Amino acid sequence: MSNEPLWHWYTEQVDPNERHSFAFTAVHYFGRTQIQAAEIVETVNYGKMLIIGGRTQSAQADEAIYHESLVHPALVAHPEPRTVLIIGGGEGATLREVLRHRTVQHAVMVDIDGELVEICQKHLPEWHEGAFADPRAELVIADGWDYVAQPGPRFDVIIVDVCDVLEQGPALRLYTRRFYEMLRERLNPGGLVAIQAMELSTEEYKDHLEVRGELARVFPLVRSYATYIPSFWSAWGFIVASDGADPGTFDRVTVNARLAERALDGQPPLIDQLDFYDGETHDGLFALSRGVRQLLVGGTAGAAAGETLA
Amino acid sequence: MSNEPLWHWYTEQVDPNERHSFAFTAVHYFGRTQIQAAEIVETVNYGKMLIIGGRTQSAQADEAIYHESLVHPALVAHPEPRTVLIIGGGEGATLREVLRHRTVQHAVMVDIDGELVEICQKHLPEWHEGAFADPRAELVIADGWDYVAQPGPRFDVIIVDVCDVLEQGPALRLYTRRFYEMLRERLNPGGLVAIQAMELSTEEYKDHLEVRGELARVFPLVRSYATYIPSFWSAWGFIVASDGADPGTFDRVTVNARLAERALDGQPPLIDQLDFYDGETHDGLFALSRGVRQLLVGGTAGAAAGETLA
Amino acid sequence: MSNEPLWHWYTEQVDPNERHSFAFTAVHYFGRTQIQAAEIVETVNYGKMLIIGGRTQSAQADEAIYHESLVHPALVAHPEPRTVLIIGGGEGATLREVLRHRTVQHAVMVDIDGELVEICQKHLPEWHEGAFADPRAELVIADGWDYVAQPGPRFDVIIVDVCDVLEQGPALRLYTRRFYEMLRERLNPGGLVAIQAMELSTEEYKDHLEVRGELARVFPLVRSYATYIPSFWSAWGFIVASDGADPGTFDRVTVNARLAERALDGQPPLIDQLDFYDGETHDGLFALSRGVRQLLVGGTAGAAAGETLA
Amino acid sequence: MSNEPLWHWYTEQVDPNERHSFAFTAVHYFGRTQIQAAEIVETVNYGKMLIIGGRTQSAQADEAIYHESLVHPALVAHPEPRTVLIIGGGEGATLREVLRHRTVQHAVMVDIDGELVEICQKHLPEWHEGAFADPRAELVIADGWDYVAQPGPRFDVIIVDVCDVLEQGPALRLYTRRFYEMLRERLNPGGLVAIQAMELSTEEYKDHLEVRGELARVFPLVRSYATYIPSFWSAWGFIVASDGADPGTFDRVTVNARLAERALDGQPPLIDQLDFYDGETHDGLFALSRGVRQLLVGGTAGAAAGETLA
Repeated sequence: MSNEPLWHWYTEQVDPNERHSFAFTAVHYFGRTQIQAAEIVETVNYGKMLIIGGRTQSAQADEAIYHESLVHPALVAHPEPRTVLIIGGGEGATLREVLRHRTVQHAVMVDIDGELVEICQKHLPEWHEGAFADPRAELVIADGWDYVAQPGPRFDVIIVDVCDVLEQGPALRLYTRRFYEMLRERLNPGGLVAIQAMELSTEEYKDHLEVRGELARVFPLVRSYATYIPSFWSAWGFIVASDGADPGTFDRVTVNARLAERALDGQPPLIDQLDFYDGETHDGLFALSRGVRQLLVGGTAGAAAGETLA
Repeated sequence: MSNEPLWHWYTEQVDPNERHSFAFTAVHYFGRTQIQAAEIVETVNYGKMLIIGGRTQSAQADEAIYHESLVHPALVAHPEPRTVLIIGGGEGATLREVLRHRTVQHAVMVDIDGELVEICQKHLPEWHEGAFADPRAELVIADGWDYVAQPGPRFDVIIVDVCDVLEQGPALRLYTRRFYEMLRERLNPGGLVAIQAMELSTEEYKDHLEVRGELARVFPLVRSYATYIPSFWSAWGFIVASDGADPGTFDRVTVNARLAERALDGQPPLIDQLDFYDGETHDGLFALSRGVRQLLVGGTAGAAAGETLA
Repeated sequence: MSNEPLWHWYTEQVDPNERHSFAFTAVHYFGRTQIQAAEIVETVNYGKMLIIGGRTQSAQADEAIYHESLVHPALVAHPEPRTVLIIGGGEGATLREVLRHRTVQHAVMVDIDGELVEICQKHLPEWHEGAFADPRAELVIADGWDYVAQPGPRFDVIIVDVCDVLEQGPALRLYTRRFYEMLRERLNPGGLVAIQAMELSTEEYKDHLEVRGELARVFPLVRSYATYIPSFWSAWGFIVASDGADPGTFDRVTVNARLAERALDGQPPLIDQLDFYDGETHDGLFALSRGVRQLLVGGTAGAAAGETLA
Repeated sequence: MSNEPLWHWYTEQVDPNERHSFAFTAVHYFGRTQIQAAEIVETVNYGKMLIIGGRTQSAQADEAIYHESLVHPALVAHPEPRTVLIIGGGEGATLREVLRHRTVQHAVMVDIDGELVEICQKHLPEWHEGAFADPRAELVIADGWDYVAQPGPRFDVIIVDVCDVLEQGPALRLYTRRFYEMLRERLNPGGLVAIQAMELSTEEYKDHLEVRGELARVFPLVRSYATYIPSFWSAWGFIVASDGADPGTFDRVTVNARLAERALDGQPPLIDQLDFYDGETHDGLFALSRGVRQLLVGGTAGAAAGETLA
């Protein structure tokens, strides 16, 4: 039997004409919360994989690429991020990365799905690494929209780490202009928003452009960046939006210098705790190809865009 | 029927535990040459796709990413490339990119499979764009090994664009130290070799490291770079090897300046003919992530490697 | 490569929740006629396979099961079938089986898709075995509906061998009460209609019951039978309808006796020309399981049904 | 999401060139016993499905076809089966069918995998329907080989219901001549052995012929029969072996008469408890097609075979 193919497959149907299939050998969780269908399976090639609503959320082998890319550019671009708000981020890995920065005194994570957070706390210790128990962390089970709509404190950095299902689901309105306006009202001066923003390549870019377009109606500065994520088989896009702060203007030397200041007392240098991100990685994230830049410049009102073709 | 899935699929079995499947709607060519199995199908998502031995070679929608990445860094890094040797490159698109540089006076393309070249000439005009008819181009149907083993002229740049099937097949010995030694003997002083070098990500890197290791035993300088290619669903790696010339030290300004000098008379600026490559793209190609650099530094004798972790 | 899976697959999507996939190694035809999409591929397991509109029509390895089951019960149940009308049957194999009976003096095959017939004549000689050239055969390229709607001769047996796509396509109205009324008007006294009638098992039976219901509104006798067809991975159903003639009442001895009378002069015994059908096969075709009979008796007005549960 | 394909699939790889895939929506059990890999998933089309070692064992929608076909022909062909031995049959459904016969006073079920039996007792109540609690039933957790090799009582009917994995696994030696010799020594005079005997069609028959050949070296009478099982997408074969008793000589009238005598006191007629089997079903099971009979007659020493081509 050892030479035969395995028989349980998770098949992500990208669209009617393309499929990605992963063999798995164990099922850690398979069910539904009140909010969404969720599964955690053990894939052969990427270790544990969290699947929500039929879409890969993150995989053990390379979740660091996703979470480090989402968190560090914005935190590095802020001179002293003390308070951070995370919308979504159920696995706890976004929180984990935020808490690596010694400047952070308080990180609030607001996730709508308390059941899912419990499932992740139980089954995904490789993701959260105990971050939920950090005294600087606060977990709020609530709809992100409701949380930011009500009066409350402002933050230095806000990170939006919610599902990429634009068509439907609870995350839909977290991709609208109105939500971004509310986020801006909850930012301290000089603050930044970082948001996961779907695929970004010359073949797949429409969802990214849509998010970017909404952000550009609210923030003077929007900056797209992207990296390849093996378990997604995709180049994944992110956007930082702000009133002017722009990680795209940081070079590798500056990034490495910032990282060097940020380690917690008694911890090794922050850079040594990271699998993916550092100064050169930062350069690669923000150096977009000519083809992608043409899409961005073409698809977003020029004034708001950080990128140029020139 | 329009809402039903299509029924003909090309399934690339990445390994026993992972599959990528593409629906196709037409068959342009399906057969075998004396050398290899070859098919050209019309995929819904990527247009025409050339498949050799069950592996995607290139797709209409994004072959430019592959071919521009393979050709331009080495040609830009050479101050005046007059003669270029291409080993492989049956589709004619590598030749097409080489001939865009006004400095190139003679480009020799050596492919082992004359039948395949004819199939590509007939069915893939979007790839070669008539390059075979350029008076500067010379097509030689021969085994690349034999061609470089025999006495002959030296070249400014040599590009190796052959199948990524290391396990077997005619291209196997084109990935050996001995072959690279022969290539070096056919290089003019200051010359560079550019080679397609399989996947390069933190998940898939073994084949790349193997090629890089063989090159590093022959050339003082080896420099890896990579980009995401949508139809490959992968981050694809390339290597430039030389006695010292290193595109990894070029920044975007220098690259754009070089490109500006290279257009043929009567043609628009070279940069406007490209879909993917320019100075910023170049920066992105060569800015490898921390994770990938750790693999490269760990996997190759340090002296020969162009990359560092620092 | 020999141990790797093949990479071209024909995937029949049975419904959104079930798929059958066949590897193929060559493409004999791939295109569209004015009427429908058609492909002939070389599957590893079943030889040539004809696919129309994404549905397997017949496969070289076992087309005999389908065609012998469709043709012989009705022809055996008729004491002397001299004239036969075939609606559809583009491959020519239904015609081939009809012409094996020495009593047949004239067989008219009416197919709507002349291009498809030509494709089959060229690429599927294993199916038609030259039947189109038999002087007793007449090929008419026309819509089956139009052919039977206009005045014309009556036939001893009419065989309906058209696509099983009930939802749409040109064959749709060939499964209606009105069409069956017209067929009845073109039958000689004592004549029978045989029709391919989709899957028939306890899991898949709705299309069969629909056809059977329409037939039962026109003919006093409808008799369902079924057999497993490997390349369909299904138990396939057929129906004979008539004013009373009923192959379901024939036992194996009678069937074998009839077959013994039917061979053409100078030919071996008809039974020796057949791969599938004979008296015992006939018994098996008409002995339906309790589960299937319950569906038939429940789903069709009792008076017209040939089957009983008792 | 409702129109999108589901994303978890069980893919039975029939051989390197053919695949069957079933979408599932829940996981009831997923793990390994000390003996084998086992899963119970909820398929959309067939309800719960038990998978062992990557092969479908039985499905909720049509397990009755398999289990009624395995049990009743042998029990009906015996004039008064009082004692029955079942080798394997972990789901409990074979036991369930055996216990329907009022003549049965004692049924011993010997299964090697006690963990699997417990899993089935817990998760598959639709299969066993409480049969394990019947006072006439005795469950022995032991290797079937060991059980019959040691001295013990004789039985009127022995049923072998073990995995169809001939290449390897614990069931391998339960398909050998030596095992069948031991079984014969544990049969009362006039007794019969019934055995599940893999696929039987003109396309798939080798495993069946192998089992049949081994049986024919031990028993004077071997009789093959088959039926289509939707969730297997196959025509499944069974064999009865004996010193002479032969269900193949029973007609539908005799079968129905026997069934009428067999109901337990206070129960409805046995025939009304069955989904699949009755007299006409019996006729269909044993009426094999000409193509299959040719394989059987050709593949087994003639004297031992029950079937003939004539």
